[in-house]
Amino acid sequence: MGKKKVVVIKGDGIGKEVMDAALSVLSILDLNIKFIEAYAGYECFKKYGDTLPDESLKKAKKSDAILFGAVTTVPGQKSAIITLRKELDLFANVRPVKCYPGIECIRKDIDLTIVRENTECLYSGIERYTDEGAEAVRVITRKACERICEFAFKIANEKVTAVHKANVLKKTDGLFREVFYEVAEGYPEIEAEDVYVDAMALYLITKPQDFDVLVTTNLYGDILSDEAAGLVGGLGLAPSANIGEKNSLFEPVHGSAPDIAGKGIANPTAMILSSVMMLRHLGFEREGDLVENALIEVLREGKVTPDLGGNLKTMEMAEEIKKKIMELS
Amino acid sequence: MGKKKVVVIKGDGIGKEVMDAALSVLSILDLNIKFIEAYAGYECFKKYGDTLPDESLKKAKKSDAILFGAVTTVPGQKSAIITLRKELDLFANVRPVKCYPGIECIRKDIDLTIVRENTECLYSGIERYTDEGAEAVRVITRKACERICEFAFKIANEKVTAVHKANVLKKTDGLFREVFYEVAEGYPEIEAEDVYVDAMALYLITKPQDFDVLVTTNLYGDILSDEAAGLVGGLGLAPSANIGEKNSLFEPVHGSAPDIAGKGIANPTAMILSSVMMLRHLGFEREGDLVENALIEVLREGKVTPDLGGNLKTMEMAEEIKKKIMELS
Ligand SMILES: CC(C)[C@H](C(=O)O)[C@@H](O)C(=O)O
Ligand SMILES: CC(C)[C@H](C(=O)O)[C@@H](O)C(=O)O
Repeated sequence: MGKKKVVVIKGDGIGKEVMDAALSVLSILDLNIKFIEAYAGYECFKKYGDTLPDESLKKAKKSDAILFGAVTTVPGQKSAIITLRKELDLFANVRPVKCYPGIECIRKDIDLTIVRENTECLYSGIERYTDEGAEAVRVITRKACERICEFAFKIANEKVTAVHKANVLKKTDGLFREVFYEVAEGYPEIEAEDVYVDAMALYLITKPQDFDVLVTTNLYGDILSDEAAGLVGGLGLAPSANIGEKNSLFEPVHGSAPDIAGKGIANPTAMILSSVMMLRHLGFEREGDLVENALIEVLREGKVTPDLGGNLKTMEMAEEIKKKIMELS
Repeated sequence: MGKKKVVVIKGDGIGKEVMDAALSVLSILDLNIKFIEAYAGYECFKKYGDTLPDESLKKAKKSDAILFGAVTTVPGQKSAIITLRKELDLFANVRPVKCYPGIECIRKDIDLTIVRENTECLYSGIERYTDEGAEAVRVITRKACERICEFAFKIANEKVTAVHKANVLKKTDGLFREVFYEVAEGYPEIEAEDVYVDAMALYLITKPQDFDVLVTTNLYGDILSDEAAGLVGGLGLAPSANIGEKNSLFEPVHGSAPDIAGKGIANPTAMILSSVMMLRHLGFEREGDLVENALIEVLREGKVTPDLGGNLKTMEMAEEIKKKIMELS
């Protein structure tokens, strides 16, 4: 396997801090990866006049994977992350929801994955002012429905649940549901069901253990994945992958958290778990398992940042994980 | 005060059962109300060829309030409840979220109200097929934003939180947020803040006690109110009011539940709490308090339906509430 090219975009605020922690963990593994830094976000805008300079986009396009920290988005400025998802056609946003040892969860047996369509829906960017106010267009295409549903069935173990609101959005969500069941026919060994998005928001609380893979359109996926993160310890632990045909991008679900930035106390778990997703995606399965297992031990022992009830700083938690990696390997 | 006219629409499935329970409770109060039955829903369609016959709509328009059970909506048929909300311009959907004694809640100190705009957003009904798939139009008008925000500030005690996604929907949700802060200026004694909808889905789980009134557009309100119901015992306990300038409609958040319909075991709490909201809205404050207090005692004593861990039937629970009303009055 040739050397992989990973573009690192730290971004703003705690994005930089958790990325440094993740890179420090990765540094002790024997990986055939070349890391290349690129810039994006608010600080980048202040320096280079663009929240996502062309050069960063070019580097990203030529990479095997992108590790993305978090950016601060200011009203009126182009969102670096939404632009990257669209430009690189990263159509599948994958958000695992899992209860780790030592973490307070609503239930212990939660282990599901939200697969969120990442390129259209109300994120199409089509909005206009009208005489009475404003309008946005929700775009749902057959092609995007097909590929996101295919993706969901491919990663499912037992069941895929399509989440929609076809009782109200009869054409757009009706199409999504229709395509979902068409795709389901190709996977007779996987159970297929569909649920209304409002009911799903309830079921995540009352019976999250009933679900394996959820597949849904962009905005519902945005809302449900934050909710789901709340069930298993919050955004500090929620990783995500943005997968396309050519490129891929791995980022924590949390933002740049200006309120705690600079203090060195941000929880690096979501970023490190995002790196684990990246390692597996690039074929470094064994290394991915190693980092996740080390992290699990550290969580179990409570060697964690203040948000999880510990008293370690971001980099100290990373050091603990590195020690565990040494022990385990 | 003249006699009030209340139109009763039982609907389908458990809608009929919980309505009978609620009417039985109301029957022992000395109310200056005339109840008039009207039909809507799937059974109504089978009998009269329409899910909401003109006659029902006319009766509804001439009423002081509508008590609505639940209807079964079949794909391709007009939704009776959405039609009623629109035709009667019931612009404010009010959904209290409160932890009652004897009910398992995520936290004990939850007491918030979701105010959901009820007439537009993705419920505008504007959808079309395109070459690639389908499109829906999300309509946000200044007028609807104004009146829903006014409504929210009027019922708030301490704080109103506007929920939106203006980082992505810069024009439509940008307008909503802008109008929200304009309206807030008229209520300097009430705190005003705004939160992204995905973050709100998380905060409902991690810090629901921090909120008083949430105000939001139609679809976010739909999703968040089901989620919120999950925090305080589920849909069996979630009432709602749909308020307009002239008319008003009170309904449980749950549906017609075909799976348990006909067994007489549906939880009547949400319907009874909806009646309590109606009583207060019509000026029967004392009677509203009486029913709510009686219900609280019955919940505390565990004289409840199977979904809440009891062994009473729907009508038996109603009888218990009536006994308590006698004791308390
Ligand atoms: C920052 C924002 C544009 C983004 C989104 O809405 O997709 C974030 O909430 C997420 O979920 O990754
Ligand atoms: C039945 C459905 C059309 C309705 C809605 O989406 O408004 C329901 O979910 C609700 O919340 O009252």
